[in-house]
Amino acid sequence: MLVIHMARGCKSLEVARVCDFLERRGCSLRVVGSFESPYIVSNGCEKVGNLVLSLPGVKTVTSTKKPYPLASRETFPDDNVFHITEDIKVGGGHRLIMAGPCSVESRSQILETASGVKTLGANVLRGGAFKPRTNPYSFQGLGSEGINLLVEAKEKTGLPIVTEIMSPEDLEWLEPHVDILQIGARNMMNFALLKAVGRTRKPVLLKRGMMATVDEWLQAAEYILAGGNHKVILCERGIRSFDTSTRNTLDLSVVPLVKSISHLPVIVDPSHGTGRKELIKPMSMAAMAAGADGLMIEVHPRPHEALSDGAQSLTLEEFGDLMESVNRLCSVLDEEVKAPCGLRIAM
Amino acid sequence: MLVIHMARGCKSLEVARVCDFLERRGCSLRVVGSFESPYIVSNGCEKVGNLVLSLPGVKTVTSTKKPYPLASRETFPDDNVFHITEDIKVGGGHRLIMAGPCSVESRSQILETASGVKTLGANVLRGGAFKPRTNPYSFQGLGSEGINLLVEAKEKTGLPIVTEIMSPEDLEWLEPHVDILQIGARNMMNFALLKAVGRTRKPVLLKRGMMATVDEWLQAAEYILAGGNHKVILCERGIRSFDTSTRNTLDLSVVPLVKSISHLPVIVDPSHGTGRKELIKPMSMAAMAAGADGLMIEVHPRPHEALSDGAQSLTLEEFGDLMESVNRLCSVLDEEVKAPCGLRIAM
Amino acid sequence: MLVIHMARGCKSLEVARVCDFLERRGCSLRVVGSFESPYIVSNGCEKVGNLVLSLPGVKTVTSTKKPYPLASRETFPDDNVFHITEDIKVGGGHRLIMAGPCSVESRSQILETASGVKTLGANVLRGGAFKPRTNPYSFQGLGSEGINLLVEAKEKTGLPIVTEIMSPEDLEWLEPHVDILQIGARNMMNFALLKAVGRTRKPVLLKRGMMATVDEWLQAAEYILAGGNHKVILCERGIRSFDTSTRNTLDLSVVPLVKSISHLPVIVDPSHGTGRKELIKPMSMAAMAAGADGLMIEVHPRPHEALSDGAQSLTLEEFGDLMESVNRLCSVLDEEVKAPCGLRIAM
Amino acid sequence: MLVIHMARGCKSLEVARVCDFLERRGCSLRVVGSFESPYIVSNGCEKVGNLVLSLPGVKTVTSTKKPYPLASRETFPDDNVFHITEDIKVGGGHRLIMAGPCSVESRSQILETASGVKTLGANVLRGGAFKPRTNPYSFQGLGSEGINLLVEAKEKTGLPIVTEIMSPEDLEWLEPHVDILQIGARNMMNFALLKAVGRTRKPVLLKRGMMATVDEWLQAAEYILAGGNHKVILCERGIRSFDTSTRNTLDLSVVPLVKSISHLPVIVDPSHGTGRKELIKPMSMAAMAAGADGLMIEVHPRPHEALSDGAQSLTLEEFGDLMESVNRLCSVLDEEVKAPCGLRIAM
Repeated sequence: MLVIHMARGCKSLEVARVCDFLERRGCSLRVVGSFESPYIVSNGCEKVGNLVLSLPGVKTVTSTKKPYPLASRETFPDDNVFHITEDIKVGGGHRLIMAGPCSVESRSQILETASGVKTLGANVLRGGAFKPRTNPYSFQGLGSEGINLLVEAKEKTGLPIVTEIMSPEDLEWLEPHVDILQIGARNMMNFALLKAVGRTRKPVLLKRGMMATVDEWLQAAEYILAGGNHKVILCERGIRSFDTSTRNTLDLSVVPLVKSISHLPVIVDPSHGTGRKELIKPMSMAAMAAGADGLMIEVHPRPHEALSDGAQSLTLEEFGDLMESVNRLCSVLDEEVKAPCGLRIAM
Repeated sequence: MLVIHMARGCKSLEVARVCDFLERRGCSLRVVGSFESPYIVSNGCEKVGNLVLSLPGVKTVTSTKKPYPLASRETFPDDNVFHITEDIKVGGGHRLIMAGPCSVESRSQILETASGVKTLGANVLRGGAFKPRTNPYSFQGLGSEGINLLVEAKEKTGLPIVTEIMSPEDLEWLEPHVDILQIGARNMMNFALLKAVGRTRKPVLLKRGMMATVDEWLQAAEYILAGGNHKVILCERGIRSFDTSTRNTLDLSVVPLVKSISHLPVIVDPSHGTGRKELIKPMSMAAMAAGADGLMIEVHPRPHEALSDGAQSLTLEEFGDLMESVNRLCSVLDEEVKAPCGLRIAM
Repeated sequence: MLVIHMARGCKSLEVARVCDFLERRGCSLRVVGSFESPYIVSNGCEKVGNLVLSLPGVKTVTSTKKPYPLASRETFPDDNVFHITEDIKVGGGHRLIMAGPCSVESRSQILETASGVKTLGANVLRGGAFKPRTNPYSFQGLGSEGINLLVEAKEKTGLPIVTEIMSPEDLEWLEPHVDILQIGARNMMNFALLKAVGRTRKPVLLKRGMMATVDEWLQAAEYILAGGNHKVILCERGIRSFDTSTRNTLDLSVVPLVKSISHLPVIVDPSHGTGRKELIKPMSMAAMAAGADGLMIEVHPRPHEALSDGAQSLTLEEFGDLMESVNRLCSVLDEEVKAPCGLRIAM
Repeated sequence: MLVIHMARGCKSLEVARVCDFLERRGCSLRVVGSFESPYIVSNGCEKVGNLVLSLPGVKTVTSTKKPYPLASRETFPDDNVFHITEDIKVGGGHRLIMAGPCSVESRSQILETASGVKTLGANVLRGGAFKPRTNPYSFQGLGSEGINLLVEAKEKTGLPIVTEIMSPEDLEWLEPHVDILQIGARNMMNFALLKAVGRTRKPVLLKRGMMATVDEWLQAAEYILAGGNHKVILCERGIRSFDTSTRNTLDLSVVPLVKSISHLPVIVDPSHGTGRKELIKPMSMAAMAAGADGLMIEVHPRPHEALSDGAQSLTLEEFGDLMESVNRLCSVLDEEVKAPCGLRIAM
């Protein structure tokens, strides 16, 4: 595939000429990004890359065999660093700690959790309002009422919020309220939903499907990037294997692997990844040591009362203990990175 | 869980009283089905089942521990037999043979295939207009134009059509045109989509997710049944395992297993299930011998020209050969069933 | 790789010259088979195959990229048909029905089962004397006493016996007593054991490992073939996947797949493959319809008293019912094969 | 199950009486360990545990539902700490760093590697002399010659050696030469081999099978413990999953999980676990952060010349870099443990 970057301020006629050039040769193409400085992704014209480069308005042309040209480090060598809010960034050494309950259950529950996790060091509040439940008769979340409560918690604490979106139909009204749109593992190949969030400019947290290969995961990200939304955060949350001693098999080796082949930030969810609260702290430590850009942790003031996922939720106290250890670990890891270690992918 | 069947012609006040009875005891409930003779599914009131039975208007009360009470044979012991068209039924010994191309590619391609497979014994035409492709730059199907071509093929041949729906947003305009709505493997846990097709009264072909357990598959079916649509056909299409010598691992043992625990018809897709055309015939034979209610076979007039899945498509000639062998096999199997063999699940 | 077949009656000097020719060029080599008409397998000399063919005493030279040259149909296109006893053959349309208890438990149990399954149509008696149990405190089999009982059953019924061997140390004393040496799934990659049975001339039943790819399975067979023992029967017994609704996932598509790439006979064990007795009959039917060369079925006079695997054992009556259906099915399948159907792999 | 610990200096008559007591009640039993202070493991007499405790010579009686009573922390709450050599211990905070080539290939290769890894901080030398290769025509290791070279390297450097044993037949001559007997992943369920190494008193490194559950792994360890050898080191080396982007899926969550349910030390092999050299350092860091008792790392002076596994071998320089980072990380982790963190399992 070719990724053609047009020069800043290029004219629309120049873009049209490149497209015409590609179409005449029977190559597929897609224009991505801003009007000022768009990218053109093309499949099938790899051999005439040099000719394309000589066309007016073309800045760079990169060729790649990866099926995810926009997500690949071959095309964009630098870490993709972007803002969640004015103050909070992700990627390139900026860590994202998302914490909060599996489901928003009540006003007091979400407000108590939000102010608690903020004090203890989280910089994003998580909470589910629309819950993808295996069983139709299980609690399906508070819906729009849950969103209202999250917004209230955000106003009270200043924490940006991340919540799951389950259908393209919900996007229009949901988007203005949330700071990060979450695509759940079960929807990683819901291509209609991926296309929808690709049309927004909100950051998207893309969870890895429980049976998705690394290649499939990055192609799911590519759906969003190809829509013009470059703010994608990948989240490893465990895959399905034959062993049921943990809820899922947390595949930490994808952290350094994906970071070596893609510029996108990768965070880890050890709560879903293990399903057992006593494993969350050690696996959080392991995730950070493997080079993760952040964590997503389920925290509930009273886990035994949780309507979903109580067995994998930490109390506020346990979350505080985890943050202390993670912070100490990260101070060593940060020192490592400053040293010329030659190994960008992990530390 | 309790499944409460109200008597035909029961009064709305009687339904309301049952609901009130359950709610007072803190049990969840859901009313399903026609106004004349609805079902009430309730969770948590198993101990007062006998009291419920004594309420006016209640016909039967069944208790089950299965998380899919409406899909379970415990609740509905008889095979779920229903019409696709006036002439064509599925379930209870009525076989469904769906054949056609992976994607609708052109008018001539779909018309040629449709008339070919009809002559050779298919009773449903398959064809994808909206294609769930792993890569955003791959051919995504002809969309609404493809639907028009399918409708034309249906008018020409009389074959009912099955095609995939990828988003709740498409349902309104798509529903009147197609005879069976297909939910693809990647969307088996797209609960927004399951709820949407549960609100229609069109038959739904629910493919097993590539990572779905039998329990999860039947709970996905339960989402549709709980919406009031009882016309669900399950389709085994191979699961993902460690072995890549076939595209997927066709799990035929779920055919007798699911038929023993559920009343829903189960068909098999050996094309996706193996991904290799030379394996389609033997695995079709095996599927029927295992007790399947039908097959879904990819057929293309010229597989090497197919825009997708050419490697797993049969020519019309090969499909004819397959049908001949399957018919001969089924004549023996039908004879078996007549004998009092005590083993309903397979033959 | 090259497979060099020496002419019948070739001289040892001629064999030596071929070996010398290969070694001078730095290629690995191994001499396999009888003194009269040996094969030489060589790795690395593919380019000089024609030169090798011109050496004295060389009959044929076949080149293959498969890592299992002796197991491959590229090298040996015809079905590998061989004798179990003077009367019983396997492969090429000769069906092997192995039946008997998981473990030999007592004299009366094995004698009753043996005479029962013989009457009902089995042609080999199975029974475990050395049991590979996951737990060290579980019943480990009767050991040599169990072998004695199997031998007595064989004398009484005339049925040849198949039993598992767990260690190279047991081979010397075990070999004279049994007709087929079984390698269990857990030992499929016990290469010391594979080499040991490769040195015998007894038929070997090689079960597929629960985590083995098709390529690994055929290379395990190659270990035995490379030892000079060409009598290998492959047995699919289910692989391990994420789904636990059956004990293992019976992967029937390997039957036509393996038979298309290898000349070795393939049988199916639906007892271990499903772990549920109600699924054994339908999956036996499916296995035969997929083209299997036989079945291995656990039968116990009183399954509820079995010391191991009772849940997956048939009674003699159920086995009789299964055999009747299988025989009826096979009569159709045999008719198919006579027709010029062009599809050797399945029917 | 019951684990009955006899008092130090108990009389053989007292042991016999306990056994008699258990046998009369139809319970299975096994006597394990030294003559002075043996354990008796019994299945089926859980209800009379108190009676057993009152028998003469009995010190303690523990009841557990785990199928691996000797490997369980319920029975032995303290970390199992034991010596590899007089100077080197494993478990309870003592770290084992095993490094060396996949295969011993030549005298210079193993001597150069041994002195290199010793200088850089390894405390055990690994090297394969008998190699379990999937293909019978691949390099199978130098065999006894390889053992001689390992012994020479041990004499030169003082490093104890670990090497794989593939057959019970090799045990007698191999045992005196090596310090740790390795059971490979493919032989984790080779019960004849497990029983054989259970009869020695050498430490055993038991790799997890590529498709073994945690329960199966601990029961494999139990085979060795039940033979009277308590010196078992568990080694996670990656499991097989659907994703092939890494050679295996390194399942780090088993480190804290197994350490919480068993007293045995757990080390991690990121070389086999990932199969990609660039992932070895980050996954080593992650393993230690998750609480591992050590690492096993493949090191080769010139990986591109390696006869096996070159793609996953580090150079000496890379190994030095890894050790530096690991040491820095461990200094933080050690500090953690001193704090009263209440979470024994990881740090």
